[in-house]
Amino acid sequence: MREFILRALKGKTTPDFSLDDLPNAGRMDLVCRCVSNALWISNDLRRDTIIHVAMDGPSLPPKIVSFNGLDLKGVRFDERDIAKHIQEALKRGKPLEINEEADVSPGIKVAKKSFEALVKEKSKTSQLFYLHKKGGDIREAELKGDVTFVFGDYIGMPKNTESLLDRLGAKKLTLGPVMLFASHCIIVAHNELDRKIV
Amino acid sequence: MREFILRALKGKTTPDFSLDDLPNAGRMDLVCRCVSNALWISNDLRRDTIIHVAMDGPSLPPKIVSFNGLDLKGVRFDERDIAKHIQEALKRGKPLEINEEADVSPGIKVAKKSFEALVKEKSKTSQLFYLHKKGGDIREAELKGDVTFVFGDYIGMPKNTESLLDRLGAKKLTLGPVMLFASHCIIVAHNELDRKIV
Repeated sequence: MREFILRALKGKTTPDFSLDDLPNAGRMDLVCRCVSNALWISNDLRRDTIIHVAMDGPSLPPKIVSFNGLDLKGVRFDERDIAKHIQEALKRGKPLEINEEADVSPGIKVAKKSFEALVKEKSKTSQLFYLHKKGGDIREAELKGDVTFVFGDYIGMPKNTESLLDRLGAKKLTLGPVMLFASHCIIVAHNELDRKIV
Repeated sequence: MREFILRALKGKTTPDFSLDDLPNAGRMDLVCRCVSNALWISNDLRRDTIIHVAMDGPSLPPKIVSFNGLDLKGVRFDERDIAKHIQEALKRGKPLEINEEADVSPGIKVAKKSFEALVKEKSKTSQLFYLHKKGGDIREAELKGDVTFVFGDYIGMPKNTESLLDRLGAKKLTLGPVMLFASHCIIVAHNELDRKIV
């Protein structure tokens, strides 16, 4: 199983945003590109992949919207359609109490859960990785079993998040010499996992 | 110099499409994702990269819209904004005669030129590559000097296009075991070029 956790610090946590202006919804365009790149391949979905978007923006943080490639149905992979499904998930998530979760539609869940809680949970069953310019080359890394990659958004990864990841035994990796967007990093990580048949 | 040529067989060649429904404009969403992934990196543009979108859909084919990272200004990298600029280019391109081109805005040009003519032109000054499941692994390929990667869209590469590319000495490459979208292939190709400092 491959899992991706995207930390979207400014990502809207209530559904009051316009599908015509995703960049102004806490960079929802970037979030949607990550979801699209994590799950869709030519003529299929990656059935072995889940992406969790951990959002901390206004007005009801924290929220985690999770897309599971195994069950996903009826979602197109353009930004606008993915954003529409996130909007539905945030609507469904409004009444949730802390650590409650709810099904939204096939393959989509919403939880009122913090990024930290999710990462701690995953560290128990999966090998955690995060990107860092001082990390080892992903091409040299041993990738096997269940893996979870944690990505920051355009704001980057806060220092205390890095400390938490280090405490949980997450390994630092680099993908190459150029600093890429999270959505691009997902593609490069998938390519490496595909080659290592993880 | 890195150049990408995307062949969008159904891509609209007149500006009469809705920004609210890019998939129905000859998969303009896919085109926009390719442009975005070719040119934008974290906090910068790839100044050494040009992407040409060769469109053959209705109503005034052929059209090539080219985005040059060196000069590009005032474009955001979300699908909708890139689509808006393609729409402007197609508007500007309406009166063009065959093989004429016009400037649209900084870094954006439109030409009434065929995919074949563009590929022949590039083969004179650049090493051509295209993706093929029987190609050699990109990680083993010698990539240096000026390189041009040719991609098909969701329809794939027509047989006669492959024959033309072969006649022009283009090399076949594979990126990995999984069939990816053109927009994803661009990211993986860039990553390899970044590592080889092309």
